[in-house]
Parts: sequence; structure tokens; C-alpha cells
Amino acid sequence: MSAIQKPVRRELERVQAQLRKSFRTPIPILNQVGGHVLATRGKKFRPTLLLLVARLRGKLGQDAVRCATVVEMVHAAALVHDDSVDRSLLRRGHPTVNGLWTDEMAIIMGDYLYAQAMSLLVEHQLDFAMAVVVRVVSEMTCGEALEFQYAYNLDVTEEQYVELVRSKTGSLIGAATEIGASLNGGVREIEHRARFRRFGEAVGVAFQIVDDVLDYQGDPKLTGKPVGCDLAEGKVTLPLIAALRSATDADRARLRQLALRKRWTQGQWQELKRLVDKCGGFEYARDRAQAFAAEARAVSREDLDPERARGGARRRRRQGDGSAIPGAAAARRALDHAVDYAVQRDS
Amino acid sequence: MSAIQKPVRRELERVQAQLRKSFRTPIPILNQVGGHVLATRGKKFRPTLLLLVARLRGKLGQDAVRCATVVEMVHAAALVHDDSVDRSLLRRGHPTVNGLWTDEMAIIMGDYLYAQAMSLLVEHQLDFAMAVVVRVVSEMTCGEALEFQYAYNLDVTEEQYVELVRSKTGSLIGAATEIGASLNGGVREIEHRARFRRFGEAVGVAFQIVDDVLDYQGDPKLTGKPVGCDLAEGKVTLPLIAALRSATDADRARLRQLALRKRWTQGQWQELKRLVDKCGGFEYARDRAQAFAAEARAVSREDLDPERARGGARRRRRQGDGSAIPGAAAARRALDHAVDYAVQRDS
Repeated sequence: MSAIQKPVRRELERVQAQLRKSFRTPIPILNQVGGHVLATRGKKFRPTLLLLVARLRGKLGQDAVRCATVVEMVHAAALVHDDSVDRSLLRRGHPTVNGLWTDEMAIIMGDYLYAQAMSLLVEHQLDFAMAVVVRVVSEMTCGEALEFQYAYNLDVTEEQYVELVRSKTGSLIGAATEIGASLNGGVREIEHRARFRRFGEAVGVAFQIVDDVLDYQGDPKLTGKPVGCDLAEGKVTLPLIAALRSATDADRARLRQLALRKRWTQGQWQELKRLVDKCGGFEYARDRAQAFAAEARAVSREDLDPERARGGARRRRRQGDGSAIPGAAAARRALDHAVDYAVQRDS
Repeated sequence: MSAIQKPVRRELERVQAQLRKSFRTPIPILNQVGGHVLATRGKKFRPTLLLLVARLRGKLGQDAVRCATVVEMVHAAALVHDDSVDRSLLRRGHPTVNGLWTDEMAIIMGDYLYAQAMSLLVEHQLDFAMAVVVRVVSEMTCGEALEFQYAYNLDVTEEQYVELVRSKTGSLIGAATEIGASLNGGVREIEHRARFRRFGEAVGVAFQIVDDVLDYQGDPKLTGKPVGCDLAEGKVTLPLIAALRSATDADRARLRQLALRKRWTQGQWQELKRLVDKCGGFEYARDRAQAFAAEARAVSREDLDPERARGGARRRRRQGDGSAIPGAAAARRALDHAVDYAVQRDS
């Protein structure tokens, strides 16, 4: 992450300062819970992508920092609600809000963070970002609803899974990169915005598939949560979907039997993993993640393709390929690293 | 309510149609839960007030209907989350979302309704309403946080209680009336907007105090929920606060002892109620509700006061007193009835 964040390190520090400001309230309990959420926030992958995409078109001002802050707050709000929905007690090794306080406090804190994020957009009249944020909150919620709908359903198809993952994870990363593309004069460049939205969505889907593989194969010391959490909560993800699809009848029957348990002995879990592996589930899922990453890379480079760029305005082309904007080339390299990170990480 | 709603009946029907539209989604489970929420919605007190206040300045167009729909959706979202926070299984005799489905579904449904409400504002570029709605979601959440903070605390003061109730209930009714005052050319009339915000907040505080009295004295057949719910959840409300304040030492000791239970026998509950009554708790609370109602009536009539109106522009005065706008006088009478309703209702 360090290499990815280098071109926007200063701005990320300003995001952190703005987050501290936005989390402050006159209500002691909200300060306490908000302080915990802020202290246990992760690597700021979404703000980083937003800032890097904006950097392709020019320097980063206050609005970029505000938008990046908002995206991080929306992400934090969604996680606080999701952890309560999923009854998760740990996230990256830290206790969750519902774990440390209650589900009630998680609802309140999430709502508060959503409202604070939107307040920042209203205050600075960032209407284009508001439109994107409102859309994405709706999409993410639909993703959560689909997860509820499909819980413990072993007949979920890959197509349904991808739709779910796109709503749940792809939408917010796509929103971050679309907002980034809208900054520095990009608001009305519909094609440029749509392209970076597709870029972010593809990165997000790749990211989530890897997450779902790590739920089986990850090292709890690195991921900060025990393996098998997803399946125990009824989340049927790509490795299992793919394995069930290509298994022999006997293997499929055994897999279904094992998968429908909510708790496993060490031996049962190992057998389940072995079967998913034997049926090619992990390999298939990792391949799909790589394919989405490749799609993201291709989309982000469309403006460098002379065939495609020919029709566009010269101005757009110059801004797009970054050759005329100091620092843009470094931002583009960092975006490539970000795509690599999404699929190569082990936590 | 029927007399109150008469001047805006047609618009309320359009609000209902818009609600049906906004609740529709491609996700079966969301449709199912949303359908339940929509079917069990109450009397539309907030949209009614919004429309009546807007009606003071002229006819009602599409934007008024949209804003009224948004306020109702925000109210529905807040209730769905609150019922989960409070673990309530019944609301006005109907099972709650968390009761019929799960707390998880309540989180998802509430988030979805918030997002849909804001989408409607973005879609129609109702930026002034968005600013108010974003502020009020933050305020309502702070109210919920204060309730969490003060739970089971018998030393809560009347001032703290009023602050909580103003955030929790007054803020959304104040938002509804402020948005109403902003329609029909009122957006930039800061004084007019602020006046109707204060009006709605006072109505809301009066409304909530009566609600809190009904939790002790209401008829479950009318209110649709058993008595004593609030205290069982740790909500220390005005009747008890006032009673504890003016009780003799012996009565106070007994009251505290009874109040700190979470369950009561029939006899214990009757004794608790008798003590609150003996110490003047109910009388005091009802008096305070009447005082807030009187404040609301006075605020809503400030523009009719020649002393205050003298300084204002003629235009504003004419629009304010309604004499020149057909139908405005009926709307004003209905607003008066709405204030009466807030304090005289028995459910």
C-alpha cells in the first residue's frame, strides 16, 4: 500500500485530519464510539483510489480531500452496519462496535456517520458527489439485501454472486473512482466518469472475490478474523459456487452436506476445503479475480489507445494520458499497483 | 386528523402514490419488507404539516408532494431503525420489521429508505430540502445517542430531557415545517423559514411529551402497545423526572426503587403510577406539553402581529397572513387544529 499511496500521501494526511474533525460531536457516547471506529480504520484504499484518479487530471485541492473523506466515512458507516448485520465481533483483529457496545449503538453510529458524510457534501455544495454517494448507499444496501435473500442458498449462481458483489463492494469503489474522475474539471465528461466508475467497480469485484477466497484460505493472524466466517453466516461465495458446479455427483453431495453446517470440527473444515480445492473452486475464483483486474487495467488505459482516443477532443486526450500533467504519470503507475494489490493481498 | 388533512387531502393521496413508487425495488425481500412498512404507516402527520405550511404561501406543486414524500420516508426509516434499537416488537398494533424479520433486516430496510428518500431529492435537485434533511438525520441520530447515554439514569434533568426530545422528535417535525416554509418562493426568506422550523420543533416536543405520558396512562387498545415500554427500556421521561423532583424523600426513595425495575407486577406498576400522579408528574408533563403547544401557536402567528410585521416587506406580510392567497386561511386553521391534535390525542 505504501507505494500506492505515495503520490497522494499529503492529501491522505489531510483526509485523516478531516475525519478526526468530522467524527467529533458534543455527545460523549458518540465521541467514544466514533473514536474507536476512527482508531481502527484500515488502509484507506477507497480514498487513495479517489485521489489517484483525480490526480490524473491535475493537482488536488480541498474538494478532493473532502470527497475522499466522505467516501471513507460512508465506507466506515457501511462496515459498522454490516458488522451488526453479520453479527461479526472482530474486524481486522479489532472488536467491532456491536461487539464492544451493542447492535443498537452500531445502528446509531452508522446512521450518524452517513449523516456526517452527507453534511460535509452539503456544506461545501459538492452536488455531483452527493448524487453519486446517494446512489451508492442505495446500491450497497441492495447488496446487503441480496445477501440476506441468498443466505444459506447453495443454488446461488455465479451471475447472482457477481451482481451481489458488484452492489456490495464494487459500487463504493466505483463511486470513489467516479468522484475522483469528476474532480479537476471532469464533472461533465460523462465518458471519462463512466470509464473510471467501471474501473473502480471491476477493482471492487476483484477485491471482494479475493476476500472471499481468503475467508477459506487466509491466515487468521493476517486477516484478523477466523476462517469460515462467511459460510457460517450463510454466505455462499465463488469458490464454493464454482466447486459445486463442477463437482462429481458424489463430491457435490458431500460438499452440500458439509457446507450447510454452521459449525465445523477441524476435520470437517479441512475436508470441506480439500473438496473445494479438488473441484477447482479456489483456482476458478482466483482466475475470475485476475480477469476482473485485467478488465480494470484495460478500462483505465482506454484513453491511451489511439484507436479510441482519435474521436475524442485533444484536450481530453492530453488530460487523460497524463503526459502534460506533472505527477499524473506517477498517479497512473500507482493505480496499476492498486489493481495488483486488490488481487495479490493476503489480508 | 381528518379536519387537519382536509385542505391538503389531494396532495396526501399523491404522496401515498409517490411512496408506493419509491418503495418498489427489483429485490424481492426488500419489496416484501417495504410493502409491510408502507402498509402499516400511520397518519402522515409530518407530510400534512409540511403541505399545510407550504399552502400558506400558494398552491401546491410536484415539489411539495416530493418533499412531503421524502419527509415521510425519512420518518419511516428512523422508526424502522428505532424499533430495532429499542427492541420493540409492536408499533401501533402492527409487528415491527425487527419483530417480523430480524434486526439485520431492520438495519438494511432503514438504510434503504434513507437512501431512496435522498435519491428523490437528488433526482429533482431539491437542494434546499437536502440540506435540511441531512441536518435532521444527524440531529435525530444524536437524539438516539442521547437516549442510549441517559438510559436507566434517574438523575436526568428536565433540561436534558427536553434537549433529547427536541433532537429525537422535534427536529424532524421542525424540518417538515421548515421545508414547507421554503416552498412557494420561501427558500431565501430566512426569517420565515426559521419561524416555521421553531413552530414545528415546538409541536414536536409537545407531541413527544404527550407520547411519554401515554406510555404510562394510555389505553393499549388505542396506542397499540403495552404501557410501561419506555421505562422498561430505560427511558426516563418527563412524568417521572418531574415526580422525582418534587417528591418527599420517602416517596422519592420508593419511586427510584420501583423505577429501576425492568418488569413490574400489576400491583407494582399501579403503585408506580399512583406515586408519579401523587407527586404531580403527569400534571406537570401535560402542562409543559400545553406550554410548548402555546409557544407553537404564538410562533405561527408572529407574522399576523402588526408590531412584528411592521418591519417586514409588504410582500412577505401579504403572503404570511394568507389574506391574499385563496385557501391559505383554511390551511392556517388546519395548522391550529394540528397543534391541538398533538396535545389532545389519546393514541
